[in-house]
Amino acid sequence: MDAACEINHLKLKNTSSAKKQISLFSYVEFCLWNAIDDMNNFQRNLSIGEVEIEGSTIYHKTEYRERRNHYSFFSVNVPVDGFDTSRDVFLGAGNGNAIPDAVREKKCRGSVASGWYPIASHQINLSLAPGEEKEFVFVLGYCENPEEEKWESPGVIRKDGAHALLARFATPRQAEAAFAQLNEYWDGLLSRFTVESGNEHVNRMVNIWNQYQCMVTFNMSRSASYYESGTGRGMGFRDSCQDLLGFVHLIPERARERILDIAATQFEDGSAYHQYQPLTKKGNLDIGSGFNDDPLWLIAAVAAYLKETGDFSILDEVVPFDNRPELAQPLLEHLYRSFRYTCTHLGPHKLPLIGRADWNDCLNLNCFSKEPGEPFQTTGPSEGPVAESVFIAGMFVKYGREFAEICHQTGRTDYEEEALRATEQMYQSVLDAGWDGEWFLRAYDASSEKIGSKECREGQIYIEPQGFCVMAGIGVEEGLAEKALDSVKERLDTKYGIMILQPAYTQYYLNLGEISSYPPGYKENAGIFCHNNPWISIAETVIGRGDRAFEIYEKTCPSCIEHISEIHRTEPYVYSQMIAGADAFYHGEAKNSWLTGTAAWTFVNISQAILGVQPDYDGLRIDPCVPSSFGSFRLIRKFRGSTYYIDVENPDGVQKGVSGISVDGKEIAGNLIPVEAGKTEYHVTVRMG
Amino acid sequence: MDAACEINHLKLKNTSSAKKQISLFSYVEFCLWNAIDDMNNFQRNLSIGEVEIEGSTIYHKTEYRERRNHYSFFSVNVPVDGFDTSRDVFLGAGNGNAIPDAVREKKCRGSVASGWYPIASHQINLSLAPGEEKEFVFVLGYCENPEEEKWESPGVIRKDGAHALLARFATPRQAEAAFAQLNEYWDGLLSRFTVESGNEHVNRMVNIWNQYQCMVTFNMSRSASYYESGTGRGMGFRDSCQDLLGFVHLIPERARERILDIAATQFEDGSAYHQYQPLTKKGNLDIGSGFNDDPLWLIAAVAAYLKETGDFSILDEVVPFDNRPELAQPLLEHLYRSFRYTCTHLGPHKLPLIGRADWNDCLNLNCFSKEPGEPFQTTGPSEGPVAESVFIAGMFVKYGREFAEICHQTGRTDYEEEALRATEQMYQSVLDAGWDGEWFLRAYDASSEKIGSKECREGQIYIEPQGFCVMAGIGVEEGLAEKALDSVKERLDTKYGIMILQPAYTQYYLNLGEISSYPPGYKENAGIFCHNNPWISIAETVIGRGDRAFEIYEKTCPSCIEHISEIHRTEPYVYSQMIAGADAFYHGEAKNSWLTGTAAWTFVNISQAILGVQPDYDGLRIDPCVPSSFGSFRLIRKFRGSTYYIDVENPDGVQKGVSGISVDGKEIAGNLIPVEAGKTEYHVTVRMG
Repeated sequence: MDAACEINHLKLKNTSSAKKQISLFSYVEFCLWNAIDDMNNFQRNLSIGEVEIEGSTIYHKTEYRERRNHYSFFSVNVPVDGFDTSRDVFLGAGNGNAIPDAVREKKCRGSVASGWYPIASHQINLSLAPGEEKEFVFVLGYCENPEEEKWESPGVIRKDGAHALLARFATPRQAEAAFAQLNEYWDGLLSRFTVESGNEHVNRMVNIWNQYQCMVTFNMSRSASYYESGTGRGMGFRDSCQDLLGFVHLIPERARERILDIAATQFEDGSAYHQYQPLTKKGNLDIGSGFNDDPLWLIAAVAAYLKETGDFSILDEVVPFDNRPELAQPLLEHLYRSFRYTCTHLGPHKLPLIGRADWNDCLNLNCFSKEPGEPFQTTGPSEGPVAESVFIAGMFVKYGREFAEICHQTGRTDYEEEALRATEQMYQSVLDAGWDGEWFLRAYDASSEKIGSKECREGQIYIEPQGFCVMAGIGVEEGLAEKALDSVKERLDTKYGIMILQPAYTQYYLNLGEISSYPPGYKENAGIFCHNNPWISIAETVIGRGDRAFEIYEKTCPSCIEHISEIHRTEPYVYSQMIAGADAFYHGEAKNSWLTGTAAWTFVNISQAILGVQPDYDGLRIDPCVPSSFGSFRLIRKFRGSTYYIDVENPDGVQKGVSGISVDGKEIAGNLIPVEAGKTEYHVTVRMG
Repeated sequence: MDAACEINHLKLKNTSSAKKQISLFSYVEFCLWNAIDDMNNFQRNLSIGEVEIEGSTIYHKTEYRERRNHYSFFSVNVPVDGFDTSRDVFLGAGNGNAIPDAVREKKCRGSVASGWYPIASHQINLSLAPGEEKEFVFVLGYCENPEEEKWESPGVIRKDGAHALLARFATPRQAEAAFAQLNEYWDGLLSRFTVESGNEHVNRMVNIWNQYQCMVTFNMSRSASYYESGTGRGMGFRDSCQDLLGFVHLIPERARERILDIAATQFEDGSAYHQYQPLTKKGNLDIGSGFNDDPLWLIAAVAAYLKETGDFSILDEVVPFDNRPELAQPLLEHLYRSFRYTCTHLGPHKLPLIGRADWNDCLNLNCFSKEPGEPFQTTGPSEGPVAESVFIAGMFVKYGREFAEICHQTGRTDYEEEALRATEQMYQSVLDAGWDGEWFLRAYDASSEKIGSKECREGQIYIEPQGFCVMAGIGVEEGLAEKALDSVKERLDTKYGIMILQPAYTQYYLNLGEISSYPPGYKENAGIFCHNNPWISIAETVIGRGDRAFEIYEKTCPSCIEHISEIHRTEPYVYSQMIAGADAFYHGEAKNSWLTGTAAWTFVNISQAILGVQPDYDGLRIDPCVPSSFGSFRLIRKFRGSTYYIDVENPDGVQKGVSGISVDGKEIAGNLIPVEAGKTEYHVTVRMG
């Protein structure tokens, strides 16, 4: 990146009948730029803050004189009547930024920051006649210079990069054009999946916000946010694979690149660095490997990509293991190693070993940490030969079959047969050792004691295996799926969403780890962990219960719960990681909005399971599962270069079942719309019944 | 530590003639407790904040339920009319803590924090008749419970520790008694050195604040402060040794313990971990060793301890190398290894190799870092066989001779002779290769180019070698000392103190490192680095120039510059690390107060070099060097169990020189007052002239 900027087009209009005198103040804090880089050297940063001022542009050049060759700037497209660059001077001694001295007295001080916390503030005095409007364009920018041409004169930044950027946004018309272009970009992206239904919340979330959040989580994973300091932990292997499920339809090319990046952090035995840094694309050594669900998520991501794009060439891409080019193998081989990793890491009940943890990072069955400050996942033995996960077993059946299908599609019948055999066996292991009578067990601990069983004093039932086993089809024929989901409803459901477990742990258990460190009702200890609510909703669609699936969707849908914002607290258009459970002091209060796998899984749920538009290897499959009162709805879906206009009619108000589909007026057999070469539009009518 | 607390005894008096209704609000932020522990897991912390409320006491028990067995609390000794424990609720949405909603509306909300940021606030409504006074005792406490007895009932903290503490401070009279006890403690400590002179600034700083700051820096080193985040870098080997020079007279027993701790981090070859963590007392592996001045500071610290206490038994203490008990040797052997480390690490000019850096951590002659974010001291080759330090040469002469004297005192004539020979040779090396014509050179870089020479374009003269070489006596006889100090005055002096170098570096030099990364006038790049101003002042006393020595003392003395607080900015009773130099935008502005080696070195300067009370192996030596106008002064010094009452008369206003000393009415020969067994008071009259 050479340069980038953010623009703010401000219009001020005098709607009164009297002339108005206004002093307008802008304010930007540059000060965090360095701190992020080096939290422990804050003391150094206090001395190195430097700015330059040139007309209405304030340049921040902290550290620029030495090894850094980029600078930032803040400008406005009109002459200014004052400026400040020293935070202390602008705010005044002891003030927070609610009432800066300069604003209160309507007088910037012209301060030049040297050390401490450089800011940028402009003062613009203006008068507005009745009805008059004035416009301003503020630009906050970033530029890099080549090392050998970084100075204009000794000690003075070379600024042509900034000048060029400012010239692009010097007038309100230019700003408007830029925003129009941005709108066009998003309209194009979001138009890849739209719905018109009778439910305004579904329309709003699907058409705008859910997809937008999918893009944000794809870009950031959990790597940097309001809620983490510094560059944090980087991208999660598991997280990024899941985020991709809700993003792949938006920009498949970027999903492809991401898959190859992720796969390159995999080890030769199929396991993976649990996290990697997005800039270096290298795995984080301090956390390392041993989260035994990780490998299987790679299959999930690749399957989603293949179904979206039909681009099987990705399987032939030669990808390193452990970022070492000399260990490179085709991506298909990576998937095989993912599959094999579970096969070779089974415990006493032939269920998958859990390792440091599975999806539930806080269920630490091999750790036994007693000391404050120790990481719960990597202290002590951490991995062990006994503790098993029924959740991973469910994943293995689902994604092992997915792997078999990929092999089938590519003619690798040897792998296909091996995968089908292994998933068959795992299916049986779950029935034999993973069923607790009314629901699926969660795990066996390091002493082979049951976790998530009616035999437990606390934590008798967990959400994850109920969702994933049913999504994998386990127990559907045997009638266990319905039982499990009924148990979820009976034991885990609340009006604000489905809790992750019940009863909450009321004390710390050395054999369970971090999960029992949270107060009851929070986070993994019986909070409503939004991420796996859609799993249950999808599972309900597997057994055809559209009313219940949609009820679950609505409970955590931000738009649906806007009217209880004083309870819910986070933004009414974004999913949060967690909502406090029934045991919590503030039941219904959400925490940690934006960066959560909830975005992707909810989009999978609403778009594929509920509205029923399912990309498949050979085309688009349509199989809605809706509430009986949902009515008809219309979808537009861009898929493999074509646009599908899909009208779904449901005259009898059935919850699931497609009685007929016509494509461009012709009835087709089944519910898969095959891809026809050269065709750019498909007009589809779907009749439920 | 089982329990501790801080008390605040508040008195409110109505001095008006009308009755007053008052709502009093207290406020404490508990929220940083966890963040310090785990900055990167802030997201977790948002969910685990928990409190308990019991009468007027608010308990903070975040993380208590799991691995932590301590809690904190905030209480007041009267019934309250309201409380809050949720920061958001108390402050109100979007407010900073300048105008909390609860205070504005005079109504606490009774909020119970669950997650987010627990605080404690009490509301006390009171009415005061004219002239009436009411008193309150607020207690902020910390308690630990044994793990097996941490609960009173399920989920409820066992609180007897807090109750016991609160009972000790339940009444205003108890609070007063506690404060009286604290005063007594400090009076006792500070009475170990007091002066009554005609200069109020000297009296104030010597009798109170300089000693107080010496205590603080001894306790904290640079390990945790306003200016560093987290537990930071721990205790510095070099820093802690120097801090001890200003502390050893206060509590020699603690100095002894610290010396043994520090020595235990030394490696077998005499080098040392540059930093160690105070709680584990282990060296920091990430920084490691290679700061080639470090070993010599250990000699400085031990010599100061021996002179203060006469306790030579410390030299026989068997102390590990590298914290490995199997490598333990007597402390004297540690000192010998310190001395030998320099002898075995000489460069092409027979001057000491500089390693990663010497005292000036930012002069990185072996690093060559080009990438932002890289540490300047440990990147690249870092240590090298060429770059040499004239500063370490000066140190070696000074502390090598000190080591020889220690050996002399203990009869180790073999070591003594070896040390005298080596310091003799080093003295000659400095004359041969360390003198630049008008001042001492600073160093030779990795290409054997001169640093701090008239031949340089920038950075022609540095302060450190001028101070340390003259303090070591180098060039005094040859007339070089006077020349060097005159050059300091001519080239480095400003009205706010002496700059570390001139001319400032205006660009980044790969061969110099971090020093050239700072803007001109800041920190090591031509800032007034307060730490080595006293070195020049002491050096001036070596050649007898009391006027100049005191002028230097006054320039950075916080009390002397209180009247320019709007320029100086930091507290007018505490030394700061740095004052911006003449090249800086805000010349005279100080940064980073409290934790700086300036405290100790200034106390050494004022107490030993200027006021002239010098602990020596065989007694107290009196050798003042004062301005001619300073007049007579009186000192009280506790030393080895006795109290010395010392009147210094200076009828002719000489700057240096003692013409006679009487002890208890008897004239003694020379200026050393020998220790007399069993004597508890010495009444001393010193005549300068």
